[in-house]
Amino acid sequence: MVDINDIKNYFNSSAIPANMLNRGQLVLNTFLKPIKILFEQKKIPDEPWTTEQIEFLLTMLSQMDTDKDSNASQVGEREARISSSLHLKISGGFSHGVGRSGFLSAPQPKAPGGSIMYELTNYLARDIMRNFGTPNVKAAIITPIATGMSLALTLSALKFDENRTNENRRTTVLIPRLDHKSIIKAIDFVGLLPKIVESKLFGDAVRIPIEDIENAYNEECFAIVSFTSFFPPRESDALKEISKFADQHELVHIIVNAYGVQSIEWMKMIRSAIDAGRVDAIIQSTDKNFLTPVGGALIASPSKTIIEKISRTYPGRASASPVVNFLISMLSLGINGYMELLEKQKKNRSLLERLLSQFAQKINERILDVFNPVAVAMSLEHLEQNKLYALGGALYNLRVTGPRVYDPSQKQFGTCINNYPIPYIVMNAAIGSTEHDIERAVERLERAYYQIQE
Amino acid sequence: MVDINDIKNYFNSSAIPANMLNRGQLVLNTFLKPIKILFEQKKIPDEPWTTEQIEFLLTMLSQMDTDKDSNASQVGEREARISSSLHLKISGGFSHGVGRSGFLSAPQPKAPGGSIMYELTNYLARDIMRNFGTPNVKAAIITPIATGMSLALTLSALKFDENRTNENRRTTVLIPRLDHKSIIKAIDFVGLLPKIVESKLFGDAVRIPIEDIENAYNEECFAIVSFTSFFPPRESDALKEISKFADQHELVHIIVNAYGVQSIEWMKMIRSAIDAGRVDAIIQSTDKNFLTPVGGALIASPSKTIIEKISRTYPGRASASPVVNFLISMLSLGINGYMELLEKQKKNRSLLERLLSQFAQKINERILDVFNPVAVAMSLEHLEQNKLYALGGALYNLRVTGPRVYDPSQKQFGTCINNYPIPYIVMNAAIGSTEHDIERAVERLERAYYQIQE
Amino acid sequence: MVDINDIKNYFNSSAIPANMLNRGQLVLNTFLKPIKILFEQKKIPDEPWTTEQIEFLLTMLSQMDTDKDSNASQVGEREARISSSLHLKISGGFSHGVGRSGFLSAPQPKAPGGSIMYELTNYLARDIMRNFGTPNVKAAIITPIATGMSLALTLSALKFDENRTNENRRTTVLIPRLDHKSIIKAIDFVGLLPKIVESKLFGDAVRIPIEDIENAYNEECFAIVSFTSFFPPRESDALKEISKFADQHELVHIIVNAYGVQSIEWMKMIRSAIDAGRVDAIIQSTDKNFLTPVGGALIASPSKTIIEKISRTYPGRASASPVVNFLISMLSLGINGYMELLEKQKKNRSLLERLLSQFAQKINERILDVFNPVAVAMSLEHLEQNKLYALGGALYNLRVTGPRVYDPSQKQFGTCINNYPIPYIVMNAAIGSTEHDIERAVERLERAYYQIQE
Amino acid sequence: MVDINDIKNYFNSSAIPANMLNRGQLVLNTFLKPIKILFEQKKIPDEPWTTEQIEFLLTMLSQMDTDKDSNASQVGEREARISSSLHLKISGGFSHGVGRSGFLSAPQPKAPGGSIMYELTNYLARDIMRNFGTPNVKAAIITPIATGMSLALTLSALKFDENRTNENRRTTVLIPRLDHKSIIKAIDFVGLLPKIVESKLFGDAVRIPIEDIENAYNEECFAIVSFTSFFPPRESDALKEISKFADQHELVHIIVNAYGVQSIEWMKMIRSAIDAGRVDAIIQSTDKNFLTPVGGALIASPSKTIIEKISRTYPGRASASPVVNFLISMLSLGINGYMELLEKQKKNRSLLERLLSQFAQKINERILDVFNPVAVAMSLEHLEQNKLYALGGALYNLRVTGPRVYDPSQKQFGTCINNYPIPYIVMNAAIGSTEHDIERAVERLERAYYQIQE
Repeated sequence: MVDINDIKNYFNSSAIPANMLNRGQLVLNTFLKPIKILFEQKKIPDEPWTTEQIEFLLTMLSQMDTDKDSNASQVGEREARISSSLHLKISGGFSHGVGRSGFLSAPQPKAPGGSIMYELTNYLARDIMRNFGTPNVKAAIITPIATGMSLALTLSALKFDENRTNENRRTTVLIPRLDHKSIIKAIDFVGLLPKIVESKLFGDAVRIPIEDIENAYNEECFAIVSFTSFFPPRESDALKEISKFADQHELVHIIVNAYGVQSIEWMKMIRSAIDAGRVDAIIQSTDKNFLTPVGGALIASPSKTIIEKISRTYPGRASASPVVNFLISMLSLGINGYMELLEKQKKNRSLLERLLSQFAQKINERILDVFNPVAVAMSLEHLEQNKLYALGGALYNLRVTGPRVYDPSQKQFGTCINNYPIPYIVMNAAIGSTEHDIERAVERLERAYYQIQE
Repeated sequence: MVDINDIKNYFNSSAIPANMLNRGQLVLNTFLKPIKILFEQKKIPDEPWTTEQIEFLLTMLSQMDTDKDSNASQVGEREARISSSLHLKISGGFSHGVGRSGFLSAPQPKAPGGSIMYELTNYLARDIMRNFGTPNVKAAIITPIATGMSLALTLSALKFDENRTNENRRTTVLIPRLDHKSIIKAIDFVGLLPKIVESKLFGDAVRIPIEDIENAYNEECFAIVSFTSFFPPRESDALKEISKFADQHELVHIIVNAYGVQSIEWMKMIRSAIDAGRVDAIIQSTDKNFLTPVGGALIASPSKTIIEKISRTYPGRASASPVVNFLISMLSLGINGYMELLEKQKKNRSLLERLLSQFAQKINERILDVFNPVAVAMSLEHLEQNKLYALGGALYNLRVTGPRVYDPSQKQFGTCINNYPIPYIVMNAAIGSTEHDIERAVERLERAYYQIQE
Repeated sequence: MVDINDIKNYFNSSAIPANMLNRGQLVLNTFLKPIKILFEQKKIPDEPWTTEQIEFLLTMLSQMDTDKDSNASQVGEREARISSSLHLKISGGFSHGVGRSGFLSAPQPKAPGGSIMYELTNYLARDIMRNFGTPNVKAAIITPIATGMSLALTLSALKFDENRTNENRRTTVLIPRLDHKSIIKAIDFVGLLPKIVESKLFGDAVRIPIEDIENAYNEECFAIVSFTSFFPPRESDALKEISKFADQHELVHIIVNAYGVQSIEWMKMIRSAIDAGRVDAIIQSTDKNFLTPVGGALIASPSKTIIEKISRTYPGRASASPVVNFLISMLSLGINGYMELLEKQKKNRSLLERLLSQFAQKINERILDVFNPVAVAMSLEHLEQNKLYALGGALYNLRVTGPRVYDPSQKQFGTCINNYPIPYIVMNAAIGSTEHDIERAVERLERAYYQIQE
Repeated sequence: MVDINDIKNYFNSSAIPANMLNRGQLVLNTFLKPIKILFEQKKIPDEPWTTEQIEFLLTMLSQMDTDKDSNASQVGEREARISSSLHLKISGGFSHGVGRSGFLSAPQPKAPGGSIMYELTNYLARDIMRNFGTPNVKAAIITPIATGMSLALTLSALKFDENRTNENRRTTVLIPRLDHKSIIKAIDFVGLLPKIVESKLFGDAVRIPIEDIENAYNEECFAIVSFTSFFPPRESDALKEISKFADQHELVHIIVNAYGVQSIEWMKMIRSAIDAGRVDAIIQSTDKNFLTPVGGALIASPSKTIIEKISRTYPGRASASPVVNFLISMLSLGINGYMELLEKQKKNRSLLERLLSQFAQKINERILDVFNPVAVAMSLEHLEQNKLYALGGALYNLRVTGPRVYDPSQKQFGTCINNYPIPYIVMNAAIGSTEHDIERAVERLERAYYQIQE
């Protein structure tokens, strides 16, 4: 077939001088080289790829799938036939999706290119975890379902201890209280029972003491889910202690690290937890950590077997789009691009705290003393209750998206505790946010604050 | 804002004559009119849309989402930030995905455009079912997960009778035997137990008699799954009888109609089943029926409440891509385009049977007498056993994708019965296949058949 | 660099089985093979390429240009820097354009890929001419300017006989009358003088007898322009006779074959003219013959030297877009696709004549007896003069584009003769038109005809 | 038709809350507002548009052209039929091109959208000139041909004084010597005669004294072409004096301002020249000034009549692509974006001079004392003659594109003078170049310099 490393040779008897052809080939090779390195090393590139390079890779791979075979004769009931060329865009060219009835990451005979794409992507998934805080991860998979459903998948995969009969199966999952509906729904989804461990107040911070978790444990429990990233005043869990505890009691331990890859501090906690005891799986959102559209998750594990078990649990095929999205993010960012994003996030987090502090001083409020590398919470003790709701509305109208105003006297869900003493507002300086976002948000908060008092 | 229905007015003092401007506006309006009709009627258009019209709609809607707001200040942890403009292609512009922690089809405050898109799409989902055989469907939803996982979702949503306590929950699902791994995996996934009802031979056909299903029933059963589209020799289930039976025993009844929308005969069976007794949900693949990439399913129901229950069961957000894919298919085909596809499928199915018959006569084989509006099976009684495996390989090498060669003496899974008497080959004339596919497939089968004998 | 002919080898230690990888490589190679053949043979492919194949070729070649070199250091005043990635689409990736101060088809050191692209395209230009009627063409060039400007370019290139001094230069161009403003403007443009030879009526047809051309000739004449495709009642010129005449008098002879490639009859006339005497250049529109957007022309010649002279006359660089457009047309059609278009055109021309005849009979008019393989003219003798103008308007309102209604008593320009006896309407069944266009046009003509009489 | 300013109203009876719909509409309106302002003001926006906004505009306008009319019946010989959807990309959707047999900017009845697009673009062309140094420009046109051909067009348009007969036409064009082949070719192209006025040395600089121009003048001269942007040692012409001189002698005066818009100093010279005497037209490259692909030029004039005359001179239609390219540049940059580019250019020019100075000192060379706001020249007096050629080659191999090494003893063309005393190298810090380009270029020059001495 065409040898794109030697296009110049096809034209060596033309009017175009040899040195010009050589230069052209050189420039083309500069373009192709990162693809070769990716194929050889199966690692995230250091430097970002151009859009054209990413598209070139996707074209090459998707053109290996049999739905592209003009010489094929297709008599299956599922041949990745499409009604519009627009579908190729939406699927990145991978119309066969991923997965088989066998398991999620099983190679598909009709989609050799798609199979390579998925295999490559899963290598990059492991690589990003290893590069940014958890070198003790052994395998990873990009699931084409978001964090909530990925928790369901993981729980389902690990739910039954093989030694037990149906009657004495353990079906309870320990949950240090965290007020996010998807968690409970994921547990319900797979027919398990949550057992929520209540939290306690430590200064401003809401934590679930390890002793309370230990006390909640009983014979029915087969798993525990712990958390890193969440909003103040809820702090991240004592992962290391939970990990040891899980190890002692042979509990499946799943860490929901929803948007925690962006923080080296949270990642270090996970690393230690893996080293200290038992961690079965760590689940992270691809959109919240890696700037993809919503729809995928990265499940990592210190055990290859567990990742395979998870892969084998998924019933049937799935959309390739979330997988392609993650691949695009890794290639368009590169290790260096991701590193820069993390640094910027850190700076923006400092900026957010500084600006909120200044404003807090003006209005006689204070920053809550809660550890969180992404979010900052400010008290709103001196605002009348009816103004609290108005503040949220005013911010919405000023096009500030994402802030959360909590009034525990009205609604406790979200505070992760019963009877949190004061109202407050939370804002995030998450990965991908800009200085401009942060500055404008605090300015507008100030404006909204005075507006509602008028 | 810009009034695109009146662009001409912005240029009425230019060198361009009025009649020319009017013509331009007229042509533009012809382009825009189907969008208006879609918004007003929320039905599948009769005529196909152009690629440009579909893209225009997707642009307009996705430009309503707050991640596009240049004047916003984004301080959430999830703001649909993306690392590359390629992500917009893959997500159709809907980077926020679909769903909330609340439920799958819940409007997303940050994604008004995405929410409109999903609502519209679900109307079209209902409309396609109503137009093509099941007018008694009341609601439908496009799930961003394929058939297997959608079965899991539906089972999970309908799994617990609210009146019962945890202890005496019924957890068994009746399954008329159908050899597809995803079915059992879906049941396992949500912590339920399958009870498989064995099949029997009726001439060439494999069926599960309703009496055997009735006999298999016990107090533990809470649901039954029935099937339309599958491969010969397995025939579709007696939906009407099962529907009545489910009604009598208060069983949840889910019909897996994987690629059955393409056949008016299967759809009529579903229609009757709905009318005759109890059908909770009907699940169909979007790729197998509607020519999308793999990744979505259409769940329909005669009950709005059930669709809402299903929607509420999904934990968290999900990729918008499978939803967009379905929308693209409906708009790029239109009612008339889909009708044509069905007619062509019917012709191709006849052609396949005719050509296979002719070949069967030559080699002293016969077409199996099994009802199936998509697939045709031919006996392979006179081929030595070791040639059967070779035949599959030869077809693969001749680039025939999708045929299935079965040798029940080697492997029973797939025949849906114990001890099917003879080996056979199955081929499909499914929706979207071409005459050329069919002709070439039978030619190549013939070539392969003689090849392996040499 | 990456060896795309051996992608499978990069994954041979993966979970993907070898036979699957081989299949993937096979499908990819089927995709790439036409590119290889194009590079080797430099001819139009027999079969159409897919959009993806064309884009792949354009990407590969445009990625050879130095503006894509991430490792370059660019300190020229012209480095193909662009303000938006949209520019890459519009230019097909070839931001350096074509041409140099030297000449139009000169290789550009900064654009090796663009240079290859242009060279390839010019081979295909020659090939299409050779395949469809003029095998005696020796060279061709796609000019990034349309027919009118290409005539100016050709005239300018061939305008001065090198043996003559400035004073006694011959500056007159003989033109058999053809009422198209661009012709005269092209001659004026390059500072030459047209000498128009008046036409005569032969039955319905307007022709310029060769004797009248001979009589018009004098010492000042250095060139003659002849024509094939135009509208009835003007017929094509007697190319063979003009060619002989040009040879005798050492006149430059340029054939304007604006949309004549679509007709084998016109092409045969050109072939004979080349063989019989002197033809310097034949100019054809790329949009009218090859279904590109407006903007390019194909200049062919029986002499390589002349094509080179034309190329050397163009001052400076030019847009690559019209060149890329022609390349896209040749690849997306292939020889077979173009052949089909020609056959369809022929059928549509017959249909148009048949339908117009039927209508003519009804209204007591007749088809004009004028040779033209694309257009048909029908008399309008029985329509009152004031209705003629109304008919044009009515057709416009009925969205019939392209018909021409002539009333010689009002305006002679367009009839190509003084005092054409009757009014008439002309319609075309040109390449790319559909049966539907033709049928609808005649239907609407009928409707318009009766409408204006009411 | 669909009212995109009121999409929310189509969904006000849906499950999506009103405040959410309002927000969506608000975000969409923010997206659309710049389009409205463009239509109303016909000026370059202050702020850059997004890619999506530009595409939206192009879609809307191109969907007004009759080739998009699904309800049309097309029986012309030219209906903008295309063979591939790729053509829509290359033409920005404007397959009808620009121009008619009448004139270049004439509205096309079949292309109302394309006509609006071109009209708008020409307003922006005037606007950029007025905003960046020449407020006394009255009209402008984007020609779909590059600078050289645009000079030919302008000369052709203005070539004949209407009062004169053919015999005593003045055909000579005065050219202050400037060594660029396209200039002479453009003059030849339209059948005129160049009269080159030789240059003189003033220190390092090469200039053409106004007295020498005046002396060269004779009765045959009808025009003079003057220049701003070129490479050292040639300086820009004394535009103001030439302008006065042209006025006195009724000479057509065309300024070739090839890449001069980027420099406020050159633009001020043009402004003064317009005010002081006679300037008929100013020609600038769209790619060199406005970061488009090669292929267009902007011709501006203090007289509307002249621009119209130029427009009327173009024979026939032309590609829309260069026009669309300019439009894209103006919208993707905005006034502020262009301003930033100019500031960056200025800084880079300073940086280039500083770095070259430092290197010059090291090797005992010097920066030539020549006024040029884009380029810098450094002497190469101490390099042996045979090394000069090697230096060019070494730089090419180091991927430095654009530098020019001149050795007047070998080749004078390019120095713009006979016997320039010393060899030198020229580098540019042109608009769109980066700091990185400049730094890397000088580094590599240094490396190359020492390399060739080894």
